[in-house]
Amino acid sequence: MALLHLIEQVSVVGMGGSTAQVMDVLIDGDRFVGLAPKIDLSTVNLDERTDGRGKLLIPGLINAHHHSHDRFDKGRFSGIPLEIWMGLYNPPSYRRGWTAREVYLRTLLNGIEMLRNGITTVVDDIHFGGLFEPEVVHAAFQAYSDLGIRADVSVAWSDKPFQEGIPYLAERLPDTLKGTVSAHAAARVLEQWQELARSWNGRVRFVFSPSGPQRCSADFLQKTWALAEHYDRPVLIHLLETRIQALTAAKFYGKPMAAYMDDLGLLTPRSVLAHGVWLSAAELDLIAERGASVVHNPACNLKLGSGVAPIAQMLRREVNVGLGTDNNNGNDLNSMFDAMRLAALSNALLDQDEVCPVGALQAFNMATLGGARAIGRGAQTGSIEVGKQADFCLIDLKTSAFTPLNDALTQLVFCEQGSAVRDVYVGGRKLVDHGRITRIDEEALMLELMERMPTLQGRIQGGQDASDTLRPYLVGAYNDCLADPQMVGLRHSINQFDRSRRGA
Amino acid sequence: MALLHLIEQVSVVGMGGSTAQVMDVLIDGDRFVGLAPKIDLSTVNLDERTDGRGKLLIPGLINAHHHSHDRFDKGRFSGIPLEIWMGLYNPPSYRRGWTAREVYLRTLLNGIEMLRNGITTVVDDIHFGGLFEPEVVHAAFQAYSDLGIRADVSVAWSDKPFQEGIPYLAERLPDTLKGTVSAHAAARVLEQWQELARSWNGRVRFVFSPSGPQRCSADFLQKTWALAEHYDRPVLIHLLETRIQALTAAKFYGKPMAAYMDDLGLLTPRSVLAHGVWLSAAELDLIAERGASVVHNPACNLKLGSGVAPIAQMLRREVNVGLGTDNNNGNDLNSMFDAMRLAALSNALLDQDEVCPVGALQAFNMATLGGARAIGRGAQTGSIEVGKQADFCLIDLKTSAFTPLNDALTQLVFCEQGSAVRDVYVGGRKLVDHGRITRIDEEALMLELMERMPTLQGRIQGGQDASDTLRPYLVGAYNDCLADPQMVGLRHSINQFDRSRRGA
Repeated sequence: MALLHLIEQVSVVGMGGSTAQVMDVLIDGDRFVGLAPKIDLSTVNLDERTDGRGKLLIPGLINAHHHSHDRFDKGRFSGIPLEIWMGLYNPPSYRRGWTAREVYLRTLLNGIEMLRNGITTVVDDIHFGGLFEPEVVHAAFQAYSDLGIRADVSVAWSDKPFQEGIPYLAERLPDTLKGTVSAHAAARVLEQWQELARSWNGRVRFVFSPSGPQRCSADFLQKTWALAEHYDRPVLIHLLETRIQALTAAKFYGKPMAAYMDDLGLLTPRSVLAHGVWLSAAELDLIAERGASVVHNPACNLKLGSGVAPIAQMLRREVNVGLGTDNNNGNDLNSMFDAMRLAALSNALLDQDEVCPVGALQAFNMATLGGARAIGRGAQTGSIEVGKQADFCLIDLKTSAFTPLNDALTQLVFCEQGSAVRDVYVGGRKLVDHGRITRIDEEALMLELMERMPTLQGRIQGGQDASDTLRPYLVGAYNDCLADPQMVGLRHSINQFDRSRRGA
Repeated sequence: MALLHLIEQVSVVGMGGSTAQVMDVLIDGDRFVGLAPKIDLSTVNLDERTDGRGKLLIPGLINAHHHSHDRFDKGRFSGIPLEIWMGLYNPPSYRRGWTAREVYLRTLLNGIEMLRNGITTVVDDIHFGGLFEPEVVHAAFQAYSDLGIRADVSVAWSDKPFQEGIPYLAERLPDTLKGTVSAHAAARVLEQWQELARSWNGRVRFVFSPSGPQRCSADFLQKTWALAEHYDRPVLIHLLETRIQALTAAKFYGKPMAAYMDDLGLLTPRSVLAHGVWLSAAELDLIAERGASVVHNPACNLKLGSGVAPIAQMLRREVNVGLGTDNNNGNDLNSMFDAMRLAALSNALLDQDEVCPVGALQAFNMATLGGARAIGRGAQTGSIEVGKQADFCLIDLKTSAFTPLNDALTQLVFCEQGSAVRDVYVGGRKLVDHGRITRIDEEALMLELMERMPTLQGRIQGGQDASDTLRPYLVGAYNDCLADPQMVGLRHSINQFDRSRRGA
């Protein structure tokens, strides 16, 4: 029998609007069933009662774009741009060969960090650096399942060798360092994806993810969208993360990347477009018209020198926008508090009007309902609403970040870094209890990780050696791209884009 | 008698270089006296011994630019630019009339937040919103003194009415809303500053701060620099925080702001220039030549839409750069971890080279020795060095941010948000002991603040009402400035500046 749980007189944000409201919140099993300033309890037998005074209740945060695969590479570098970083620190340019147990542990470690930071749903796009063993892949899904978090997990794939996704790279790279992808491998991946889609379709769910339009064949992309339609899942794809990707569209396809995708029928309401930093105004119009979502990853966009996404422009067109933390070593915080703060801070660079369009409320909306809608879970989670899953956090207001309490939502975005998150619930189940993870023995996990660390770090060093060989060719191609005559307009368009569009 | 304290086999960063080194660190009273991979203890009688294994020792962080006066306004807004914000949420446009006790409490609250975040030295530039009572001013110094933190405290002043510091504002503002400053008041301030300079000259010290070149008369500025010379203290001044301030220089003085200051003899090694977002290449050359320091405040620069300071350009010219958190409600985190991370992240926007010049090491250097040097305390604090004051933090490496431990310094900047700071020492005295503040009863402080909150928030509301009256005139002047023909070049110079200078 489900439990009836009342949280009394708690300040709530996430019911729409920006002002916190003091409410009684009633939960029956996994769902919110009552939400009112004062709930009449005369005919109700409660199983549990929580005093909500001095606490803030918010929807569980939705990390709408993340990659867990580089957890062990955390903090290994700073100051290099995406095109070079991808070859050096991100699959698929070399394999680390992590075992199923290692994948399980790293996913738990990441998931724990996220849960404790108030994230109740994660979208995890995992690169295995090549073809993948079912056992290794299932380990990641299993970790999220054991942890109790809500997760959309994909297994990223590109059916073009990596050197064909970046202009000038294929011609610079010696044949011995080139990657290859067989037609057979692509067919096998589509098979495996379907197996995963059938196996995982609940709180933890398989979703589709061809890595990027320029990294895949048109045929592979179209087959993926057809499968997503059949299995009713979102499709994640990286779109125009860097200016070099905008150049790539011009050079490879002779048209803007969003137009290229649209011509293939790949812009639909189930399309989840990660980044979109270099979208032009016409591409934004197209995305708005097709009802696709964008996921904003401000930290990674900054750390990898990609730029600032035109989020204000997206919001003005009513494009649905989610928010993500992205890579472990391209960010490196698994914190949506950081992502919200950066979304509100960095957008100021793109708009010098009296009122900046991405403030605390917009950042909060992206981190909650925007993310849920992006992955088609908007009816299920992302806001505090009767009938929705009880995914929420209780935050201590008697802390420095909220003293004095002037505006709970603004302070949540600008003053809180996650340390005041006390309790986190997914589907009504308490997964973080006063900071403690309830369903995993965290101490045992850390101990096992420490023991395995020499092996893990040895394998990372192996990857580093492979990177060192590759680096000069990546740097060469990167510089070739920057020097390309078609790049000139792109290099200077940041910050001017927004103004020219506004006609101010 | 001084105590001899050994911290054994601790990982140290902050001795120069970017790699953590395992060291024995010996402290005699308030100073570091030994620093070696293994210290010979055969002839030494230790008073205290701390096991440093699994810990990281870093220099205490230097918050080189902060304003404590708006602590009670924390989190009250987002999304407005500096010129409007200053009038609405920052003195001197209206007075809140905080009492000595309230100033004492708010300073403690801020100082505690900083200490717990590893800050051992704070530069606090306090606006009292008009002329100041000695009792109220001393309360702030006393709070830092009681807390044990190292502090350079100034009492900001402008001898021009606020409407004369922003183009178009004086002509828009009705006479009834105009501020006035008498010549007598300016003379009285210079007197009071000297009294403070004589009273406070130790760990807590008075420093000078005319608010900005455009907000003060040339005479007042020159008198201040003469006093700073006499009392051997730094002078803090805000320089080119916004593009409108660059316009102000052009309109008021017909020359760049740094050139204007230099002509008055105000660029010296004791000049601490806050922000410098809109410095041109020629101004940067001048600052480098004169040996003045710049303090970078990345969060405030973003939140108030000011822009990204050309830090890479400063470092290339060997300008000394410190790092600050700036205002409570213009940031709103009193965290140098946040400031370091943002310094490394946001600078990526200004430089698209293969290697971004502001990485983890540069951010860390700004947050430590750069800040200490800016305020003339470089021989005393800011690095782990024999003979220097023992200002340092012990950080737990057995935490999520440092798992796995790939590169302590990079992880410190990109993965740690302050929650792993365990112990903080200033001059050898432990001020934070496993997260607990040692010299202040924090619980009693929070209780007293809660009791006083209705009064405090009532007074904030009074300020809000005054702001509402002022707002349309500030918005009008702001928009006038943006529409000024001389603004056109300035509006587009961000991001182009760096490239054109490098001649790449």
